[in-house]
Amino acid sequence: MRNGRQVAIVGAYRTKFGELWDYGLRELAFEAIFGAIRDVNNLIERDIEAAFVGNSSASTFGGQESVGPLVVDSVGLVPLSVTKTGGTGASGAIALRSACMAIQSGHHNIVIVCGLEKMTDVTGPEEVNTALAHSIDQEWEARQGLTTTGAFALMARKHFDEFGTTKEHLASVAVKNHENGSKNPKAHFRNRINIEQALSAKIVADPLGIFDCSPISDGAASVVLSSAEKAKDLSDNPCWIIGSGQASDYLALHDRSSIVSLSATRFAGEQAFQDSGVSRDDINLVELHDNYTIGEIMAIEDLGFFPEGQGGYATLNGQTSLNSEISVNPSGGLKAGGNPLGASGVAQAVEAVIQLRGEAGSRQVDDAETALLHSVGGSGALAVCHILTRN
Amino acid sequence: MRNGRQVAIVGAYRTKFGELWDYGLRELAFEAIFGAIRDVNNLIERDIEAAFVGNSSASTFGGQESVGPLVVDSVGLVPLSVTKTGGTGASGAIALRSACMAIQSGHHNIVIVCGLEKMTDVTGPEEVNTALAHSIDQEWEARQGLTTTGAFALMARKHFDEFGTTKEHLASVAVKNHENGSKNPKAHFRNRINIEQALSAKIVADPLGIFDCSPISDGAASVVLSSAEKAKDLSDNPCWIIGSGQASDYLALHDRSSIVSLSATRFAGEQAFQDSGVSRDDINLVELHDNYTIGEIMAIEDLGFFPEGQGGYATLNGQTSLNSEISVNPSGGLKAGGNPLGASGVAQAVEAVIQLRGEAGSRQVDDAETALLHSVGGSGALAVCHILTRN
Repeated sequence: MRNGRQVAIVGAYRTKFGELWDYGLRELAFEAIFGAIRDVNNLIERDIEAAFVGNSSASTFGGQESVGPLVVDSVGLVPLSVTKTGGTGASGAIALRSACMAIQSGHHNIVIVCGLEKMTDVTGPEEVNTALAHSIDQEWEARQGLTTTGAFALMARKHFDEFGTTKEHLASVAVKNHENGSKNPKAHFRNRINIEQALSAKIVADPLGIFDCSPISDGAASVVLSSAEKAKDLSDNPCWIIGSGQASDYLALHDRSSIVSLSATRFAGEQAFQDSGVSRDDINLVELHDNYTIGEIMAIEDLGFFPEGQGGYATLNGQTSLNSEISVNPSGGLKAGGNPLGASGVAQAVEAVIQLRGEAGSRQVDDAETALLHSVGGSGALAVCHILTRN
Repeated sequence: MRNGRQVAIVGAYRTKFGELWDYGLRELAFEAIFGAIRDVNNLIERDIEAAFVGNSSASTFGGQESVGPLVVDSVGLVPLSVTKTGGTGASGAIALRSACMAIQSGHHNIVIVCGLEKMTDVTGPEEVNTALAHSIDQEWEARQGLTTTGAFALMARKHFDEFGTTKEHLASVAVKNHENGSKNPKAHFRNRINIEQALSAKIVADPLGIFDCSPISDGAASVVLSSAEKAKDLSDNPCWIIGSGQASDYLALHDRSSIVSLSATRFAGEQAFQDSGVSRDDINLVELHDNYTIGEIMAIEDLGFFPEGQGGYATLNGQTSLNSEISVNPSGGLKAGGNPLGASGVAQAVEAVIQLRGEAGSRQVDDAETALLHSVGGSGALAVCHILTRN
């Protein structure tokens, strides 16, 4: 990053995402963090200087607010400093950014980041839906009956009206991400689907059907970050975080100048590109926030890969498929990969590391050198972007 | 701080704490942040580069998880980057520490920190108590019926047994803090009480009575932080954050080696002293986490101002009263000042700034040059310390 000293990812791991009936928050943290630690060369646990935890809603889902200490406790790292960041679906990405700043500040050299969420088997489906609606404006939206899915449905409807985007365009996002997810052993869904299946699926909030929505998942992901000085000892193939951006937007949709674009994504993306000094042409793969299919269409436009209004057409044309023009969500994204809120942003970093190391197997992006990560909070009130490179 | 470049507080403000029926989260953020901005010389809002928000439980209290964007939106600062940190009662202190690191990292020069919590008039008293118990171990403690007050009652009972601490010692903490609070126009409670009143009060969790517990409060506090280069232009009397420490402990009481001491406080305090290079003798005032009276007694021991077991005796002797041996909680602390969870840690910084500037009126600590701040999350699973100085 142009701002401050360099930061490397030297270890990365994600659990399988899905309905993990045998896992609570403790088990998720344990598997993810020790997975990441084992991925580092000769890392002794006492060399870890701080932990950063991304979690959205453990309190509303399962009555546990002290998730930071719980994570550190679960992996035997007490009395480690632990900072929990929250920003609904962007919680993990914010944790990653905060951890970078902690290293750049000079306070720490080696830190762990863990994003996690336990969404199934903690409360009823209705309570989960209510809790998810806490991410949008409570007073002006949720209390009037709007849900997060409803908010994205409004965006989709407007995108249809302004640009001719269709349900088939939306479906093509889901088809692509299920195709990629089928190649990812850690994905929540590994089944391929076709356009017809997506189009004929049950409607959740018109025009969004069940295949337009990312699932309710349990899961955790973790990365070990290090300063440049330490990185060489800790990894043979460190990945470098070369750019970071974070921005906000008005919380309620009615206050925004447009709802066919997420302005927070535009600002965060632009910051990350400026911070890194790379251009869009340098990006080989993007892990972005497809909490809904319309979210991916808006994101590839807002991040500058396709002109406004062209995201749906481009996806249906195959321009975002694996090893096409730009590989978008090779992991399967949130749609097929799963969306345990606090984990998602960190899982994107894990996928980027796997890709940049060339270890992604059948979903490998050819000659992957530079990756862009993108997370969204709520209905777009917050966005975070990071750019990673292998050299 | 020895770690990284210097950070100054150039503006500070807190709202009154209490049952603020006319205030929601938006109004709290608005008053606190504009209060802090007005306290800075010639600060133009667009010069603010990021926001850090401390909030514990807006989702469980009022159904609003996206508190970061809500705060930025409320003060017209969209698309500002906003990072929300959560750590129950330590949420605000973690936000302060994260904001320091953001400046030290080189990413930002001027940032705002806002801690806030809306606890009354959002849900029923029973729901608030349930939500507060989310700060302790849900699986091993809260689900079995333990509350946060119950956890501190266990610590108090053990402290009684080991050191001869008495209910009169606890009462002396409350009497002192109500005396100090009576001199603070922003305090939740401004009434003086005497030992007899405290001793005869209704029991909440034996041996803790109602005067041993900090109240359920609404409130917000905000500070503007700046890099050293900018500080001179922004303030005639900047306060410097010269030390910072943060540590964790086992979440459940049964896992800890002792419950008459908070080990996280010991680690965080020691780190802050080492980071700052000052000694305990240099500290003129302490704003510490007296969520319960026993909490203050343990804290003055754990922070090294009195030997283990002597905190209660010292308080009853008047050694922690205003302008005695060490002035502890001149603001009235959480007990009389109020305890809106996410706001408390930032309000401690505001009090330190007022004291270090010599503007505290009848509660002024004589020749206040150096202050120690101390926040606790849950039943001690997390602690954060900062050391501030006026030069």
